[in-house]
Amino acid sequence: MMKLVEIIDGIRPVDPGWIQKARERTTQLVMPTRALGRLHEISERLCGIQQTLEPRIKKKAILVMAADHGVVTEGVSAYPQEVTPAMVQTFLAGGAGINAISRQVGADVWVVDVGIIPRLDVSNIPGADRLIVEKVGHGTANFTRGPAMSRQDAEKALQIGFEQATRLIEDGADLLGTGDMGIGNTTPSAAIGAILCGASLDAIVGRGTGIDEAGLARKRDIVRQGIEANTPNPEDGLDVLAKVGGFEIGGIAGTILAGAYHRRALVVDGFISTAGALIARALCPNVSDYVFAGHCSAEAGHRIMLKHLGLAPILDLGMRLGEGTGAALAMGVIEGAVRMFKEVLTFKEAGVANK
Amino acid sequence: MMKLVEIIDGIRPVDPGWIQKARERTTQLVMPTRALGRLHEISERLCGIQQTLEPRIKKKAILVMAADHGVVTEGVSAYPQEVTPAMVQTFLAGGAGINAISRQVGADVWVVDVGIIPRLDVSNIPGADRLIVEKVGHGTANFTRGPAMSRQDAEKALQIGFEQATRLIEDGADLLGTGDMGIGNTTPSAAIGAILCGASLDAIVGRGTGIDEAGLARKRDIVRQGIEANTPNPEDGLDVLAKVGGFEIGGIAGTILAGAYHRRALVVDGFISTAGALIARALCPNVSDYVFAGHCSAEAGHRIMLKHLGLAPILDLGMRLGEGTGAALAMGVIEGAVRMFKEVLTFKEAGVANK
Repeated sequence: MMKLVEIIDGIRPVDPGWIQKARERTTQLVMPTRALGRLHEISERLCGIQQTLEPRIKKKAILVMAADHGVVTEGVSAYPQEVTPAMVQTFLAGGAGINAISRQVGADVWVVDVGIIPRLDVSNIPGADRLIVEKVGHGTANFTRGPAMSRQDAEKALQIGFEQATRLIEDGADLLGTGDMGIGNTTPSAAIGAILCGASLDAIVGRGTGIDEAGLARKRDIVRQGIEANTPNPEDGLDVLAKVGGFEIGGIAGTILAGAYHRRALVVDGFISTAGALIARALCPNVSDYVFAGHCSAEAGHRIMLKHLGLAPILDLGMRLGEGTGAALAMGVIEGAVRMFKEVLTFKEAGVANK
Repeated sequence: MMKLVEIIDGIRPVDPGWIQKARERTTQLVMPTRALGRLHEISERLCGIQQTLEPRIKKKAILVMAADHGVVTEGVSAYPQEVTPAMVQTFLAGGAGINAISRQVGADVWVVDVGIIPRLDVSNIPGADRLIVEKVGHGTANFTRGPAMSRQDAEKALQIGFEQATRLIEDGADLLGTGDMGIGNTTPSAAIGAILCGASLDAIVGRGTGIDEAGLARKRDIVRQGIEANTPNPEDGLDVLAKVGGFEIGGIAGTILAGAYHRRALVVDGFISTAGALIARALCPNVSDYVFAGHCSAEAGHRIMLKHLGLAPILDLGMRLGEGTGAALAMGVIEGAVRMFKEVLTFKEAGVANK
């Protein structure tokens, strides 16, 4: 496995020269100046990432990171922990939201068990070959009483994400979406947001899958306890991940590092994925150049995270499912932007008078 | 041709009973309650429109209405009028934005010449069979000096839109997008918005394809002149269309009437298409039940129009190209919503514990 320091050392910012060349190409398309708004920005950034004026989206993949959370014993989630493995099985069977939307946009769905509690028997599920089992542990520890994981395990989670994303990239994926599954995971994500965005707990802690008012107050208190018990260092992304994060959040951060390392565009999903992006950016600020925010979640704190990352969401539809659904849906828009860039004729080719 | 009064008489509101049944189905899907936000509303409304719990999007079509505008002689557009036929030829050749995005979402593009000035020779263009020539006239009259068209011609434009959309529906289209081409057509659209939304000219008149500050002031003055010279009756959609509208705007309004009449969902594009939707709704308030707003345009007044229609845009990406591009791009999201509704397993089917 590649060491984290080597990965970070290999990540370069996107070359603004290619973006500039792409902007010049855009001015020639047979339409009023920058009439496609943000679609132009998307296609031009993709040109920058891929260092080409013919950006490719041939193979799309969603990498869903799944893990469990010790903090669930504090009663922070509306659903029982057994739902994590049950949903992983649903992903493999093709019956979840991420499967439906991925079929539409033509993305492959891969699931990585980075640390769910049970050892899953998936031998009789047809899609079992889409599950990679690389457990860092059997769920994290309860972060109100100490770190969620060791620093070594945090690095391992990042490396697993990096390695699995690298495998997909080497297999031809040129657009990667991040996804998550893990009952309780809005709690560590909110903690990460509080630390890395400097956000108040009132603003960053939300209802997740649907806790009530009393549950929300308890969840805020649990996040506060976790931060106070561990005093994570906001200057050290690995420390934040280890102390209040989750294995799947580490896996997502590793996925993002891999995209940036291999110069592939990443579409980040909602609250949990963006917590992963915050970790990745704390480790290596250059990663932001490679990240598209698929959507803005209905989870209260997501907008704060996106703002902190300087990312404008592509979609804003009040979704809050996770799994990678917002990332997958946004892939359709990104592909549309690329098609416009590549397929629309120039004024000259179309024989149309420019103003 | 069916008379306008018969068309309007045949349009029924969407049955809320089907929407309610669809909402009940949504609660069973293996995800937190209404975790897909607006995607649920989209799929449930589609169930209501189609009166089914298995909504279909098998065949999508974009109907681009093209026409010219007499008011262009007043210098309201950044582009010369010759661009209208040139862009129609580009649509047929498959080289415009609407073609690129329609290829992605799998929509057929049809172009109706409802009244462009020249008689086009498209005999040597491969896609010429996608052009329907049904000219109401060779461009409208300059509405600063009298009505843009006669009341009879306004009805004819509506009927052509209705007839062409009906043809596509009879040919299997179950999701129709509206599109437009016509140099100068943000000017009549702004006039329609001013009259039917009661919006100020400062708010509703925008830069269209890109006029400068002086041009914008002139355009506002032209719209004001058009309204003062014609005093359209805001209670009478046909009067508004005739006095300050355009042939393609009438064709779009007719398209919308056809969707509502035949119970098919319509995706409305930007500023010009929404002006058409305003006309359609002025003629028959029930049409709103069948209309989805594909996106919010960067054209200043579009948000006002959408608010007036009570429609929340699916996308908000700063696009302002027209042609139907925003409608086509939104079709991908609508299809995603439908797939989620139909393909996601229930809690029971997936064997996942609900809360």
